[in-house]
Amino acid sequence: MTTLGRRPGNQDTRSAIVQAARAAFIEKGYQAASIRGIARDAGVDPSLVHHYFDGKAALFVAALDLPADPRDIKDQVGAATAAGSSSPVGDGPVGIAGSVLVELFLGQWEVDDPPGSRFRALAQAVSSSPAVADAVRQFLADRVWSLLANEDPRRSALVSAQLVGLAWGRYILRTEPLASAPLGEIGRLAGPVLDRYMTADLDG
Amino acid sequence: MTTLGRRPGNQDTRSAIVQAARAAFIEKGYQAASIRGIARDAGVDPSLVHHYFDGKAALFVAALDLPADPRDIKDQVGAATAAGSSSPVGDGPVGIAGSVLVELFLGQWEVDDPPGSRFRALAQAVSSSPAVADAVRQFLADRVWSLLANEDPRRSALVSAQLVGLAWGRYILRTEPLASAPLGEIGRLAGPVLDRYMTADLDG
Repeated sequence: MTTLGRRPGNQDTRSAIVQAARAAFIEKGYQAASIRGIARDAGVDPSLVHHYFDGKAALFVAALDLPADPRDIKDQVGAATAAGSSSPVGDGPVGIAGSVLVELFLGQWEVDDPPGSRFRALAQAVSSSPAVADAVRQFLADRVWSLLANEDPRRSALVSAQLVGLAWGRYILRTEPLASAPLGEIGRLAGPVLDRYMTADLDG
Repeated sequence: MTTLGRRPGNQDTRSAIVQAARAAFIEKGYQAASIRGIARDAGVDPSLVHHYFDGKAALFVAALDLPADPRDIKDQVGAATAAGSSSPVGDGPVGIAGSVLVELFLGQWEVDDPPGSRFRALAQAVSSSPAVADAVRQFLADRVWSLLANEDPRRSALVSAQLVGLAWGRYILRTEPLASAPLGEIGRLAGPVLDRYMTADLDG
């Protein structure tokens, strides 16, 4: 079955562009990867890349392959709990235990080869380009933090800061034991901090 | 007074190179800045840059102008306490309250114009180059973490992850309220977490 107004051929083209972009961003880094080179790798004309994506920043966000739908994260939380994770889903306002959040967040990057290569490309891109930083911040606000239903922006900012810092230590600075500890161990060490940021009285 | 074997002229040359490098790294980013361009800006031959610095990564670490001597940090802690900071120096094994550590760490980057530009250049360099990441990790281990006298590497890894995450949120992703909150407010929010990482029973 095809959806009206979107032919399978277009989907294939878009998918080929995203795959080529992901490979280029991981291999060359954000700055060195070019739309022209990505188009060549995907076997399409550069104008087609511009047809699907509003510039390199938008292409980069698509290539990140983050869970674009918060329900994906909710499903993962459900699966982690059902699988008997040592960390139950919390019953605070956020509904996710800090240790589970740590494992899910780091787990997103763990599947790369080598592990964390997408996070590394992301960090490089965000620190190199204010436009990418804006795109990623907006992405997080729209698609991720909206899942963590609470009205205090300090909580999502602090949670975000701690999660990014852990990924930074594991994949970029490679500080031991963060670099090689099992995710469950990192979740156990940092989980209580995430719980605090999500649920504690921040003005206390 | 001059030190034997090091003429003032050499110091001036080295200092000119470091200043030109700092400006280039902040303005162009780590990847785009070149030793040839830095030498030109400093008015010296590129071979002189190589004479003083073992490559771009070493030049970058020098240009960061981080407190190379832990005593500098100790002095700053003493000054912050004497100035009546709201956060007393802690009496845990580390001897620095988490809130003071947050303010000192972020304060290092706050003096830039614009604030955080050196941190941004650092983040870009570290995520772009494993050699720079190695250099910075070694720098932190030798010059900074050795100040925080404790024997559990998990503590310094977790403290580092939290501090980097806060700077990342403030200067790079620019997540509110981290982006514009006074340092004292961020210290108050994240200080207890740093205290936990530095002093709590991590296996409890």
